[in-house]
Amino acid sequence: MTASLDFYFDFSSPYGYFAAHEIDALAAKHGREAVWHPVLLGALWKSTGIVPLAHVPRKGEYARHDWDRIARLTGVEYHEPAAFPIATQLAARAFIAVQRDDAARAKTLGMALYRAYFAHGRDLSVADTMLDVCAEAGFDRAALEAAINDPAIKAALKDEVALAEGRGVFGSPFIIVDGEAFWGWDRLPMVDRWLAQGGF
Amino acid sequence: MTASLDFYFDFSSPYGYFAAHEIDALAAKHGREAVWHPVLLGALWKSTGIVPLAHVPRKGEYARHDWDRIARLTGVEYHEPAAFPIATQLAARAFIAVQRDDAARAKTLGMALYRAYFAHGRDLSVADTMLDVCAEAGFDRAALEAAINDPAIKAALKDEVALAEGRGVFGSPFIIVDGEAFWGWDRLPMVDRWLAQGGF
Repeated sequence: MTASLDFYFDFSSPYGYFAAHEIDALAAKHGREAVWHPVLLGALWKSTGIVPLAHVPRKGEYARHDWDRIARLTGVEYHEPAAFPIATQLAARAFIAVQRDDAARAKTLGMALYRAYFAHGRDLSVADTMLDVCAEAGFDRAALEAAINDPAIKAALKDEVALAEGRGVFGSPFIIVDGEAFWGWDRLPMVDRWLAQGGF
Repeated sequence: MTASLDFYFDFSSPYGYFAAHEIDALAAKHGREAVWHPVLLGALWKSTGIVPLAHVPRKGEYARHDWDRIARLTGVEYHEPAAFPIATQLAARAFIAVQRDDAARAKTLGMALYRAYFAHGRDLSVADTMLDVCAEAGFDRAALEAAINDPAIKAALKDEVALAEGRGVFGSPFIIVDGEAFWGWDRLPMVDRWLAQGGF
Protein backbone atom coordinates (compact mmCIF):
# COMPACT_ATOMS: atom_id res chain seq x y z
CA MET A 1 0.00 0.00 0.00
CA THR A 2 1.33 3.43 -0.98
CA ALA A 3 1.67 5.96 1.84
CA SER A 4 -0.55 8.96 1.29
CA LEU A 5 -0.88 12.61 2.08
CA ASP A 6 -4.11 14.58 2.37
CA PHE A 7 -4.88 17.47 0.02
CA TYR A 8 -7.80 19.66 1.09
CA PHE A 9 -9.16 22.18 -1.41
CA ASP A 10 -12.21 24.26 -2.28
CA PHE A 11 -13.24 24.53 -5.94
CA SER A 12 -13.57 28.31 -5.48
CA SER A 13 -9.99 28.73 -4.20
CA PRO A 14 -7.41 30.06 -6.69
CA TYR A 15 -4.55 28.89 -4.48
CA GLY A 16 -6.20 25.45 -4.35
CA TYR A 17 -6.40 25.50 -8.14
CA PHE A 18 -2.69 26.23 -8.51
CA ALA A 19 -1.82 23.57 -5.93
CA ALA A 20 -4.01 20.99 -7.69
CA HIS A 21 -1.64 21.22 -10.66
CA GLU A 22 1.33 20.27 -8.50
CA ILE A 23 0.24 18.08 -5.60
CA ASP A 24 0.17 14.67 -7.32
CA ALA A 25 3.65 15.06 -8.79
CA LEU A 26 4.96 16.31 -5.46
CA ALA A 27 3.48 13.33 -3.63
CA ALA A 28 4.71 10.85 -6.26
CA LYS A 29 8.24 12.26 -6.04
CA HIS A 30 8.31 10.94 -2.46
CA GLY A 31 6.53 7.65 -3.19
CA ARG A 32 3.23 8.93 -1.88
CA GLU A 33 -0.26 9.28 -3.19
CA ALA A 34 -2.24 12.49 -2.73
CA VAL A 35 -5.75 11.87 -1.43
CA TRP A 36 -7.97 14.73 -2.58
CA HIS A 37 -10.58 16.12 -0.19
CA PRO A 38 -13.02 18.73 -1.50
CA VAL A 39 -14.17 21.00 1.33
CA LEU A 40 -16.34 24.10 1.70
CA LEU A 41 -14.42 27.08 3.04
CA GLY A 42 -17.61 28.92 3.96
CA ALA A 43 -18.57 26.11 6.33
CA LEU A 44 -15.03 25.78 7.70
CA TRP A 45 -14.87 29.52 8.37
CA LYS A 46 -18.16 29.76 10.27
CA SER A 47 -16.59 29.30 13.69
CA THR A 48 -13.47 31.35 12.88
CA GLY A 49 -14.63 34.75 11.63
CA ILE A 50 -12.50 34.36 8.50
CA VAL A 51 -14.03 35.94 5.37
CA PRO A 52 -13.13 35.42 1.70
CA LEU A 53 -9.74 36.94 0.82
CA ALA A 54 -11.19 38.90 -2.07
CA HIS A 55 -13.51 40.75 0.33
CA VAL A 56 -10.76 42.08 2.60
CA PRO A 57 -9.55 45.63 1.76
CA ARG A 58 -5.93 45.72 0.50
CA LYS A 59 -5.51 41.96 1.17
CA GLY A 60 -8.04 41.23 -1.59
CA GLU A 61 -6.26 43.50 -4.07
CA TYR A 62 -2.96 41.88 -3.16
CA ALA A 63 -4.43 38.40 -3.65
CA ARG A 64 -5.82 39.29 -7.09
CA HIS A 65 -2.43 40.57 -8.17
CA ASP A 66 -0.81 37.47 -6.67
CA TRP A 67 -3.08 35.04 -8.55
CA ASP A 68 -2.18 36.64 -11.88
CA ARG A 69 1.49 36.55 -10.91
CA ILE A 70 1.39 32.87 -9.94
CA ALA A 71 -0.33 32.11 -13.25
CA ARG A 72 2.55 33.79 -15.11
CA LEU A 73 5.14 32.06 -12.91
CA THR A 74 3.67 28.56 -13.27
CA GLY A 75 2.21 28.81 -16.77
CA VAL A 76 -1.22 27.75 -15.49
CA GLU A 77 -4.09 29.47 -17.29
CA TYR A 78 -6.01 31.64 -14.85
CA HIS A 79 -8.61 34.39 -15.20
CA GLU A 80 -10.70 35.60 -12.32
CA PRO A 81 -14.25 34.41 -13.01
CA ALA A 82 -17.05 37.00 -13.23
CA ALA A 83 -18.76 35.19 -10.36
CA PHE A 84 -16.16 34.86 -7.61
CA PRO A 85 -16.12 33.42 -5.03
CA ILE A 86 -18.97 30.93 -5.50
CA ALA A 87 -20.65 28.14 -3.54
CA THR A 88 -19.00 24.87 -4.49
CA GLN A 89 -21.06 22.15 -2.86
CA LEU A 90 -22.38 20.88 -6.23
CA ALA A 91 -18.88 20.44 -7.66
CA ALA A 92 -17.69 18.86 -4.40
CA ARG A 93 -20.60 16.40 -4.43
CA ALA A 94 -19.93 15.41 -8.05
CA PHE A 95 -16.28 14.88 -7.15
CA ILE A 96 -17.14 12.72 -4.14
CA ALA A 97 -19.62 10.62 -6.16
CA VAL A 98 -16.92 9.78 -8.72
CA GLN A 99 -14.25 9.32 -6.04
CA ARG A 100 -16.29 6.58 -4.37
CA ASP A 101 -15.71 4.38 -7.40
CA ASP A 102 -12.40 5.64 -8.72
CA ALA A 103 -10.07 8.10 -6.98
CA ALA A 104 -7.94 8.63 -10.09
CA ARG A 105 -10.95 9.45 -12.29
CA ALA A 106 -12.17 11.84 -9.59
CA LYS A 107 -8.93 13.79 -9.95
CA THR A 108 -9.52 14.01 -13.70
CA LEU A 109 -12.96 15.43 -12.96
CA GLY A 110 -11.54 17.73 -10.30
CA MET A 111 -9.06 19.23 -12.74
CA ALA A 112 -11.77 19.61 -15.39
CA LEU A 113 -14.00 21.46 -12.91
CA TYR A 114 -11.18 23.65 -11.66
CA ARG A 115 -10.12 24.57 -15.21
CA ALA A 116 -13.70 25.21 -16.30
CA TYR A 117 -14.04 27.72 -13.48
CA PHE A 118 -10.64 29.40 -13.29
CA ALA A 119 -9.53 29.19 -16.92
CA HIS A 120 -12.94 29.56 -18.61
CA GLY A 121 -15.09 31.36 -16.05
CA ARG A 122 -17.90 28.80 -15.98
CA ASP A 123 -19.98 29.18 -12.84
CA LEU A 124 -19.89 25.83 -11.02
CA SER A 125 -22.55 26.97 -8.55
CA VAL A 126 -25.13 26.61 -11.34
CA ALA A 127 -26.11 22.92 -11.54
CA ASP A 128 -26.59 22.86 -15.32
CA THR A 129 -23.22 24.51 -15.97
CA MET A 130 -21.43 22.21 -13.52
CA LEU A 131 -23.06 19.11 -15.04
CA ASP A 132 -22.21 20.29 -18.56
CA VAL A 133 -18.56 20.48 -17.54
CA CYS A 134 -18.76 16.93 -16.15
CA ALA A 135 -20.36 15.63 -19.35
CA GLU A 136 -17.78 17.36 -21.58
CA ALA A 137 -15.03 15.71 -19.52
CA GLY A 138 -16.57 12.29 -20.28
CA PHE A 139 -18.58 11.71 -17.12
CA ASP A 140 -22.17 10.47 -16.92
CA ARG A 141 -24.34 13.60 -16.69
CA ALA A 142 -27.50 11.81 -15.52
CA ALA A 143 -25.66 9.82 -12.87
CA LEU A 144 -24.00 12.96 -11.52
CA GLU A 145 -27.26 14.91 -11.61
CA ALA A 146 -28.70 12.21 -9.38
CA ALA A 147 -25.58 12.21 -7.20
CA ILE A 148 -25.63 15.93 -6.43
CA ASN A 149 -29.17 15.51 -5.11
CA ASP A 150 -28.48 12.23 -3.31
CA PRO A 151 -28.80 12.56 0.51
CA ALA A 152 -25.98 10.03 0.96
CA ILE A 153 -23.58 12.15 -1.12
CA LYS A 154 -24.72 15.31 0.62
CA ALA A 155 -24.02 13.64 3.96
CA ALA A 156 -20.64 12.40 2.74
CA LEU A 157 -19.60 15.97 1.91
CA LYS A 158 -20.81 17.22 5.29
CA ASP A 159 -18.79 14.46 6.95
CA GLU A 160 -15.71 15.38 4.92
CA VAL A 161 -16.02 19.03 6.00
CA ALA A 162 -16.60 18.08 9.65
CA LEU A 163 -13.59 15.75 9.58
CA ALA A 164 -11.49 18.51 8.02
CA GLU A 165 -12.59 20.93 10.74
CA GLY A 166 -11.62 18.36 13.36
CA ARG A 167 -8.16 18.09 11.79
CA GLY A 168 -7.67 21.85 11.99
CA VAL A 169 -8.28 22.71 8.34
CA PHE A 170 -9.15 26.41 7.82
CA GLY A 171 -7.92 27.18 4.32
CA SER A 172 -7.27 25.94 0.80
CA PRO A 173 -5.02 24.35 -0.16
CA PHE A 174 -4.33 22.60 3.13
CA ILE A 175 -2.02 19.60 3.13
CA ILE A 176 -1.60 17.11 5.97
CA VAL A 177 1.41 14.79 5.87
CA ASP A 178 1.60 12.24 8.69
CA GLY A 179 -0.24 14.63 10.99
CA GLU A 180 1.84 17.66 9.97
CA ALA A 181 -0.24 20.51 8.50
CA PHE A 182 0.80 22.93 5.75
CA TRP A 183 -1.43 25.77 4.59
CA GLY A 184 -1.09 27.47 1.24
CA TRP A 185 0.20 27.02 -2.28
CA ASP A 186 3.38 28.80 -1.23
CA ARG A 187 4.13 26.07 1.29
CA LEU A 188 4.48 23.29 -1.29
CA PRO A 189 8.29 23.70 -1.27
CA MET A 190 8.18 23.20 2.51
CA VAL A 191 6.07 20.04 2.09
CA ASP A 192 8.68 18.85 -0.42
CA ARG A 193 11.47 19.50 2.05
CA TRP A 194 9.54 17.88 4.91
CA LEU A 195 9.02 14.71 2.86
CA ALA A 196 12.65 14.65 1.68
CA GLN A 197 14.09 15.08 5.18
CA GLY A 198 11.44 13.18 7.10
CA GLY A 199 10.54 16.30 9.06
CA PHE A 200 12.46 19.06 10.75
CA MET B 1 23.39 54.95 -5.02
CA THR B 2 22.37 51.40 -4.22
CA ALA B 3 18.90 50.35 -5.38
CA SER B 4 16.66 49.49 -2.46
CA LEU B 5 13.69 47.36 -1.48
CA ASP B 6 11.22 48.12 1.28
CA PHE B 7 10.82 45.79 4.25
CA TYR B 8 7.73 46.43 6.38
CA PHE B 9 7.49 44.68 9.75
CA ASP B 10 5.80 44.85 13.15
CA PHE B 11 7.90 44.07 16.23
CA SER B 12 5.11 41.78 17.45
CA SER B 13 5.07 39.67 14.26
CA PRO B 14 6.84 36.29 14.42
CA TYR B 15 6.92 36.05 10.63
CA GLY B 16 8.45 39.54 10.56
CA TYR B 17 11.04 38.36 13.09
CA PHE B 18 12.05 35.41 10.93
CA ALA B 19 12.18 37.59 7.81
CA ALA B 20 14.33 40.19 9.60
CA HIS B 21 17.05 37.52 9.86
CA GLU B 22 17.08 37.05 6.08
CA ILE B 23 16.07 40.25 4.32
CA ASP B 24 19.39 42.11 4.30
CA ALA B 25 21.31 39.15 2.89
CA LEU B 26 18.59 38.58 0.30
CA ALA B 27 18.70 42.22 -0.80
CA ALA B 28 22.51 42.30 -0.86
CA LYS B 29 22.60 39.16 -3.02
CA HIS B 30 20.95 41.25 -5.72
CA GLY B 31 22.95 44.42 -5.11
CA ARG B 32 20.15 46.05 -3.16
CA GLU B 33 19.74 47.55 0.25
CA ALA B 34 16.74 46.71 2.43
CA VAL B 35 15.07 49.78 3.90
CA TRP B 36 13.38 48.78 7.15
CA HIS B 37 9.96 50.24 7.96
CA PRO B 38 8.45 49.49 11.38
CA VAL B 39 4.65 49.56 11.20
CA LEU B 40 1.75 48.89 13.55
CA LEU B 41 -0.44 46.04 12.36
CA GLY B 42 -3.27 47.06 14.67
CA ALA B 43 -3.51 50.43 12.92
CA LEU B 44 -3.13 48.89 9.45
CA TRP B 45 -5.89 46.39 10.17
CA LYS B 46 -8.45 48.94 11.43
CA SER B 47 -10.09 49.41 8.05
CA THR B 48 -9.78 45.75 7.01
CA GLY B 49 -11.42 43.66 9.73
CA ILE B 50 -8.25 41.57 10.04
CA VAL B 51 -7.54 40.36 13.60
CA PRO B 52 -4.31 38.92 15.08
CA LEU B 53 -3.56 35.44 13.73
CA ALA B 54 -3.20 34.01 17.22
CA HIS B 55 -6.81 34.96 17.99
CA VAL B 56 -8.37 33.05 15.06
CA PRO B 57 -9.58 29.53 15.93
CA ARG B 58 -7.59 26.77 14.17
CA LYS B 59 -5.57 29.35 12.20
CA GLY B 60 -3.99 30.54 15.45
CA GLU B 61 -3.07 27.00 16.51
CA TYR B 62 -1.63 26.36 13.06
CA ALA B 63 0.42 29.57 13.22
CA ARG B 64 1.85 28.68 16.65
CA HIS B 65 2.91 25.29 15.35
CA ASP B 66 4.31 26.94 12.23
CA TRP B 67 6.44 29.44 14.18
CA ASP B 68 8.08 26.63 16.16
CA ARG B 69 8.62 24.72 12.93
CA ILE B 70 10.23 27.70 11.16
CA ALA B 71 12.50 28.20 14.18
CA ARG B 72 13.68 24.58 13.85
CA LEU B 73 14.05 24.92 10.09
CA THR B 74 16.04 28.16 10.18
CA GLY B 75 17.89 27.73 13.47
CA VAL B 76 16.53 31.05 14.74
CA GLU B 77 15.79 31.03 18.48
CA TYR B 78 12.06 31.56 19.04
CA HIS B 79 9.76 31.13 22.02
CA GLU B 80 6.28 32.56 22.11
CA PRO B 81 6.38 35.40 24.66
CA ALA B 82 4.01 35.25 27.64
CA ALA B 83 2.54 38.57 26.46
CA PHE B 84 1.65 38.09 22.80
CA PRO B 85 0.74 39.95 20.69
CA ILE B 86 1.72 43.31 22.17
CA ALA B 87 1.53 46.99 21.20
CA THR B 88 4.81 47.95 19.53
CA GLN B 89 4.70 51.71 19.07
CA LEU B 90 7.44 52.28 21.68
CA ALA B 91 9.85 49.92 19.93
CA ALA B 92 8.93 51.36 16.53
CA ARG B 93 9.56 54.92 17.78
CA ALA B 94 12.96 53.96 19.23
CA PHE B 95 13.83 52.34 15.90
CA ILE B 96 12.79 55.42 13.92
CA ALA B 97 14.73 57.74 16.24
CA VAL B 98 17.93 55.79 15.63
CA GLN B 99 17.20 55.35 11.93
CA ARG B 100 17.07 59.14 11.41
CA ASP B 101 20.79 59.27 12.16
CA ASP B 102 22.00 55.88 11.04
CA ALA B 103 19.97 53.27 9.12
CA ALA B 104 22.52 50.51 9.73
CA ARG B 105 22.59 51.08 13.49
CA ALA B 106 18.80 51.07 13.49
CA LYS B 107 18.87 47.55 12.07
CA THR B 108 21.19 46.49 14.90
CA LEU B 109 18.67 47.92 17.35
CA GLY B 110 15.79 46.31 15.46
CA MET B 111 17.38 42.87 15.74
CA ALA B 112 18.15 43.43 19.43
CA LEU B 113 14.50 44.38 20.08
CA TYR B 114 13.15 41.47 18.04
CA ARG B 115 15.43 38.97 19.80
CA ALA B 116 14.65 40.39 23.23
CA TYR B 117 10.96 39.79 22.56
CA PHE B 118 10.87 36.55 20.60
CA ALA B 119 13.93 34.77 22.01
CA HIS B 120 13.80 36.08 25.58
CA GLY B 121 10.17 37.03 26.13
CA ARG B 122 10.82 40.61 27.21
CA ASP B 123 7.68 42.72 26.86
CA LEU B 124 8.53 45.62 24.54
CA SER B 125 5.21 47.32 25.26
CA VAL B 126 6.57 48.25 28.70
CA ALA B 127 8.72 51.38 28.30
CA ASP B 128 11.26 50.46 30.96
CA THR B 129 11.77 46.98 29.53
CA MET B 130 12.07 48.29 25.97
CA LEU B 131 14.57 50.97 27.04
CA ASP B 132 16.59 48.41 29.01
CA VAL B 133 16.92 46.34 25.86
CA CYS B 134 18.09 49.42 23.94
CA ALA B 135 20.66 50.25 26.61
CA GLU B 136 21.97 46.67 26.76
CA ALA B 137 22.45 46.81 22.98
CA GLY B 138 24.63 49.90 23.38
CA PHE B 139 22.12 52.65 22.65
CA ASP B 140 21.61 55.82 24.68
CA ARG B 141 18.79 55.08 27.10
CA ALA B 142 18.07 58.70 28.04
CA ALA B 143 18.03 59.85 24.42
CA LEU B 144 15.64 57.06 23.45
CA GLU B 145 13.43 57.71 26.47
CA ALA B 146 13.08 61.27 25.21
CA ALA B 147 12.55 60.05 21.64
CA ILE B 148 9.65 57.71 22.44
CA ASN B 149 7.84 60.68 23.98
CA ASP B 150 8.83 63.16 21.29
CA PRO B 151 5.82 64.42 19.27
CA ALA B 152 8.00 64.57 16.13
CA ILE B 153 8.92 60.89 16.43
CA LYS B 154 5.33 59.94 17.22
CA ALA B 155 4.26 61.82 14.09
CA ALA B 156 6.98 60.15 12.02
CA LEU B 157 5.66 56.71 13.01
CA LYS B 158 2.09 57.74 12.19
CA ASP B 159 3.30 58.97 8.81
CA GLU B 160 5.16 55.70 8.20
CA VAL B 161 2.00 53.70 8.96
CA ALA B 162 -0.17 55.95 6.78
CA LEU B 163 2.31 55.67 3.93
CA ALA B 164 2.36 51.89 4.32
CA GLU B 165 -1.44 51.79 4.22
CA GLY B 166 -1.37 53.87 1.04
CA ARG B 167 1.03 51.38 -0.52
CA GLY B 168 -1.30 48.47 0.26
CA VAL B 169 0.53 47.02 3.25
CA PHE B 170 -1.70 44.81 5.44
CA GLY B 171 0.68 42.30 7.01
CA SER B 172 4.16 41.60 8.30
CA PRO B 173 6.56 40.98 6.76
CA PHE B 174 5.57 42.89 3.65
CA ILE B 175 8.19 43.54 0.99
CA ILE B 176 7.89 45.98 -1.88
CA VAL B 177 10.38 45.68 -4.74
CA ASP B 178 10.06 48.30 -7.49
CA GLY B 179 6.32 48.54 -6.81
CA GLU B 180 5.82 44.76 -6.63
CA ALA B 181 4.40 43.57 -3.29
CA PHE B 182 5.16 40.31 -1.51
CA TRP B 183 3.49 39.33 1.74
CA GLY B 184 4.89 36.79 4.16
CA TRP B 185 8.09 35.14 5.28
CA ASP B 186 7.26 32.23 2.99
CA ARG B 187 7.43 34.52 -0.04
CA LEU B 188 11.11 35.39 0.40
CA PRO B 189 12.08 32.72 -2.16
CA MET B 190 9.68 34.41 -4.61
CA VAL B 191 11.28 37.80 -3.93
CA ASP B 192 14.65 36.16 -4.60
CA ARG B 193 13.39 34.78 -7.88
CA TRP B 194 11.76 38.09 -8.84
CA LEU B 195 15.02 39.96 -8.26
CA ALA B 196 17.07 37.31 -10.12
CA GLN B 197 14.78 37.27 -13.16
CA GLY B 198 13.76 40.92 -13.11
CA GLY B 199 10.13 39.96 -12.68
CA PHE B 200 7.84 37.34 -14.15
